[in-house]
Amino acid sequence: MEGHCIGIVGGLGPYAGLDLVKKIFDQTRAVHDQEHLRVMLHSFPGDIPVRPEFLLGLTTVNPGEAIGRIMVGLVRAGADIIGMPCNTAHCPQILQLALEHLRQADAKTRFVHIIDAAVAQVRKTAQPGARVGLMGTVATLRTRLYQDALEAAGFIPVVLDQAQCEQVQQAISNEEFGIKATSSPVTQKARQILLQAAERLVALDVDVLLLGCTEIPLALTESAYFGIPAVDATSALARELVKAYDPSRLK
Amino acid sequence: MEGHCIGIVGGLGPYAGLDLVKKIFDQTRAVHDQEHLRVMLHSFPGDIPVRPEFLLGLTTVNPGEAIGRIMVGLVRAGADIIGMPCNTAHCPQILQLALEHLRQADAKTRFVHIIDAAVAQVRKTAQPGARVGLMGTVATLRTRLYQDALEAAGFIPVVLDQAQCEQVQQAISNEEFGIKATSSPVTQKARQILLQAAERLVALDVDVLLLGCTEIPLALTESAYFGIPAVDATSALARELVKAYDPSRLK
Repeated sequence: MEGHCIGIVGGLGPYAGLDLVKKIFDQTRAVHDQEHLRVMLHSFPGDIPVRPEFLLGLTTVNPGEAIGRIMVGLVRAGADIIGMPCNTAHCPQILQLALEHLRQADAKTRFVHIIDAAVAQVRKTAQPGARVGLMGTVATLRTRLYQDALEAAGFIPVVLDQAQCEQVQQAISNEEFGIKATSSPVTQKARQILLQAAERLVALDVDVLLLGCTEIPLALTESAYFGIPAVDATSALARELVKAYDPSRLK
Repeated sequence: MEGHCIGIVGGLGPYAGLDLVKKIFDQTRAVHDQEHLRVMLHSFPGDIPVRPEFLLGLTTVNPGEAIGRIMVGLVRAGADIIGMPCNTAHCPQILQLALEHLRQADAKTRFVHIIDAAVAQVRKTAQPGARVGLMGTVATLRTRLYQDALEAAGFIPVVLDQAQCEQVQQAISNEEFGIKATSSPVTQKARQILLQAAERLVALDVDVLLLGCTEIPLALTESAYFGIPAVDATSALARELVKAYDPSRLK
């Protein structure tokens, strides 16, 4: 097989994997089938232990092991560029273990980091020093993955209080109305909670909203809320993956 | 890797591949990520020569060669059940060559045939002897892939006249408004042409509509048109793939 191939670690969750592949296709210049990029999605959700439980110390089973195996499988199948549509799985404790496996299998494979992609997109959307309203899982927020990256880039991260963050978590993972349980379409209740969270962040005078969990853009698909632009981490990752493949193919 | 894994030959076209994977997820009983099935999508559209041109005798390059290589890649990556969301690529001249490659790599891999899946779904939807209004590419209709299978199953296939079939083909492949050029979302023009074709088939007194091209359900997503139920070949294939994995996982 000649030329590049993008490999996607899917299953975290399954619909977030599809959403990333769709956003790669959507952002590729193509009129004929043949002009679309080579993309592989390996969606093996049952193989990957839950991420939040590990990060919150409720289990010692590091999901990075299974994620690393999936990355190696993608490389063996021909991928030379890897993306993973799950923000939580990018925390160093998980990602470093996965990338160790990847490096052992092939040191040249390019891993495109979702947090870097999202922060780069914030940089295009807002002025230096801007206030960035952050939405994500409780685990992602607790690891300060985005807060640290945004501060390092000269932005001010703004998060909701703990009770409100727990509500966002419910919109993602509640077994009745959460996006992981009901993605196609998402429930009105999940969408309403996320809209309310966005409204509260806007009330905190943010300049941009950052959808920092790949389930959130399955419910919030608009480019702005309450007059404030929204940066979707999945879409940002898709753009960086197309650029890594060939910048001239980016729409 | 233990357990089953569904491998999807994507890229024919790219969005049809995504649509099949989504319909697999949609039809799986799952509340948590971990309950979704193992699915791989290999979308390498640039590697696969165009199908209609081969079937219409405009080129001698058989796309079955490239499709077979992709199937073998899926098997090597762990797939033991294979599906291909492209009706045209199921015509024997193409499929037999692809399956020869697959059998050489692994004789036990199960290939789930989209035409069989769609006809089985027609059987659940309509009475024996029913009139089935067929929508598909010009090449698929010319190969009589569906007509022969429907007749063998005791149904009466009904197709539009040549000029109307050409219009359906334009809705699929026109470089300006066709679904392959603009899938997300599809253009109103493509949808209107397909709605008109459905209406004309209904006027020919059909009992069921068969969407026999995997691009068509990207534009026609309802379960019935003009009071007549529609069988979507992609959705039928998704159901059969889930059943091949584990019948108890089917919604």
